Amino acid sequence: MTQQDDSFLADWAVHSRFGAVEGTNGVERQAASEADGQQRKWFARLLESHGFTVQRDAIGNQFGLLELVPGAPYVLTGSHMDSQPTAGRFDGAYGVMASAHACFRVADELRACGERPRFNLAVVNWFNEEGSRFKPSMMGSSVFTGKMPLTDALATRDPHGVSVRDALDAIDERGGYEGPEVASYAEIHVQQGRSMEQEGVTIGLVNATWGAHKFEFRITGEQAHSGSTLMEDRQDALLGAARLIVAARELVDEFEPGILHTACGEINVYPNSPVVVASEVQLLFDLRSPSSEALDAAYARVMETVERVRREDRVGIEVVAEHSWGQNPYPEDGVELAREVAEELGLTHDRVMTVAGHDSTNMKDRAPTVMLFVPSVDGVSHNLKEFTRDEDLLAGVDHLTGVVRRLAQGALVD
Amino acid sequence: MTQQDDSFLADWAVHSRFGAVEGTNGVERQAASEADGQQRKWFARLLESHGFTVQRDAIGNQFGLLELVPGAPYVLTGSHMDSQPTAGRFDGAYGVMASAHACFRVADELRACGERPRFNLAVVNWFNEEGSRFKPSMMGSSVFTGKMPLTDALATRDPHGVSVRDALDAIDERGGYEGPEVASYAEIHVQQGRSMEQEGVTIGLVNATWGAHKFEFRITGEQAHSGSTLMEDRQDALLGAARLIVAARELVDEFEPGILHTACGEINVYPNSPVVVASEVQLLFDLRSPSSEALDAAYARVMETVERVRREDRVGIEVVAEHSWGQNPYPEDGVELAREVAEELGLTHDRVMTVAGHDSTNMKDRAPTVMLFVPSVDGVSHNLKEFTRDEDLLAGVDHLTGVVRRLAQGALVD
Repeated sequence: MTQQDDSFLADWAVHSRFGAVEGTNGVERQAASEADGQQRKWFARLLESHGFTVQRDAIGNQFGLLELVPGAPYVLTGSHMDSQPTAGRFDGAYGVMASAHACFRVADELRACGERPRFNLAVVNWFNEEGSRFKPSMMGSSVFTGKMPLTDALATRDPHGVSVRDALDAIDERGGYEGPEVASYAEIHVQQGRSMEQEGVTIGLVNATWGAHKFEFRITGEQAHSGSTLMEDRQDALLGAARLIVAARELVDEFEPGILHTACGEINVYPNSPVVVASEVQLLFDLRSPSSEALDAAYARVMETVERVRREDRVGIEVVAEHSWGQNPYPEDGVELAREVAEELGLTHDRVMTVAGHDSTNMKDRAPTVMLFVPSVDGVSHNLKEFTRDEDLLAGVDHLTGVVRRLAQGALVD
Repeated sequence: MTQQDDSFLADWAVHSRFGAVEGTNGVERQAASEADGQQRKWFARLLESHGFTVQRDAIGNQFGLLELVPGAPYVLTGSHMDSQPTAGRFDGAYGVMASAHACFRVADELRACGERPRFNLAVVNWFNEEGSRFKPSMMGSSVFTGKMPLTDALATRDPHGVSVRDALDAIDERGGYEGPEVASYAEIHVQQGRSMEQEGVTIGLVNATWGAHKFEFRITGEQAHSGSTLMEDRQDALLGAARLIVAARELVDEFEPGILHTACGEINVYPNSPVVVASEVQLLFDLRSPSSEALDAAYARVMETVERVRREDRVGIEVVAEHSWGQNPYPEDGVELAREVAEELGLTHDRVMTVAGHDSTNMKDRAPTVMLFVPSVDGVSHNLKEFTRDEDLLAGVDHLTGVVRRLAQGALVD
């Protein structure tokens, strides 16, 4: 292992201690939590020790800036350090740490050879990519790219009623920086699936995001005594929600294997008392597919189920919010650049789609973008047991360094 | 209307203001909440203004005592003033207010004629009958009757981590009184069903409680990314819970109409994040029936479903707690006493079973007990729209007064 590898693994080891869940290798570091705040302070010091200037914008995105060419735009590279509850230590955090080290290496090279790049270097730690504490996910990059109004984001509240504004202020991470002018963007992430591991691929060249259709349902019934009320008199919102959850799973079997993913991860029930029939349930319900046709067909089947549950269980079902997108390609020149770097380094590589969204999903609509994956053992994700081998972590840093080096020289621009 | 009726309705109107939910006729007055505390203070003053002494025991049961015969045991009558979230104003509270006024009337009669009864009079407002904030329900009467240890009850915490001990102290309702020696017990409640209304019955002579089998299930899966994880790799605890909720409802249709009630009113999901497959769900699941055979058959079917869901959805399902009871009769001499009083007053009456539990379910195992119902419009219960007509409320107070009068003279004892 090189000294650079040692340096990455040393910082990585320290990094994983923030929000560590005792007795596991995982972390709990939800957005703007105390652990997130402590880690950001540590990360700022790390960036500063390598000559970077640290700034925070109004939604708490943390930038490490190295101005090598006064006034020039920046190559931006990063991901997010916030996590889901009881999650793995790689998701997001690996991308931020790999980005920092890629920039450190390119900066060191430039200093060593006295070369002047075309663009400056910036590392970013996006605020609240996970969306577990504050919805929606990808909040920091959505505000940065103008897809979400700042005021809406700051006013969002967590389940305890704490606003993003107050949570960021509590960890002193709300700043006044307007953000760098971005020439190009690169992000690396652990794959949240197991295809690369199975096929022996070290570098995933992400060429598209699956399509998705996401619903927030509000199911309404009538509060009633859950013992004494006649069954035929009940309008049970939790039963209605349970029918939708089961239908989501059963829908998958109507499609070719692997073509449709469905999920209900969050449910909130009122009054949620052991002897009261629920009068209101909020249910989050997702469809995902690489195929627009499959997504449309699944959507139609969901609406049939909604109609049937409304009728048979006499509950109200309202779509409070929904958003959908088709299969969403990453720019082909970015994929090609990543392929060339992998070839140059002798790393196995393949084109791969991402099912999950990433901050790069926002950034690719604003700037030339490269999105990369490294393998994850068994594809375990959003779980304390998430794991990627050191050799893959290091290969990813090497690869991202190659990408950042070329981007700094002007690749993908003009 | 008599002056006594006016007096009851006047106090009843004031009473319903504590915890009133704006824009509705209902209340929210969960156990040891601020509204519960304020109402208890008001109720204490009302009792004192009628010459009663107010005491609280160590679990916050509130007693109003009128000692007419020094050292003699007490006729105890009451119910509970706590409510479910956004509930009706009649459930429990009617029983406490009717009991107070029945005692006021009997006391006035005794004072007027200078007669000395056999027993003293006591009104009780049992702590936490509902069990919505602190589990289990019927906590105050369970501790009073020795069915639940005091220390366990005081250590019970609400979903925000507040203990019963601290919640009672916050409203200054934890006392040192040991409770009266009980000669006999009477309780009146609105029916939480619609049979009496349909059949034109004013006084329900409660002769039994339905049998029940209640489960707390813990369903366990594996946290995973709810978008990217392959469907076949998932172990989704929320899906497992939804299968049980649906199965509970479908089970009802395997039995004769009306013979089985099932319900899942409360579910708690971890991590309950939109993009994470749930790893743990707590689900409360009830079966109720007037028939022990039906209950046994339903239990067996539930266990088959549990086995199937375990196998097919690859989740763990554990019964964390369960309790069950068969059809549970009220003492026949109490039913007969109530029938005689109804005849005497010319009130329509019929024997009726209760599906819901009441504090009298505990008390009847300790003392001669009478349990009464008045009708409820459409049987609406645990709902802001719960309603009982004034004429039925007043008939119930008249009837309970007759019962208390006889109990004070020694009925049902020896």
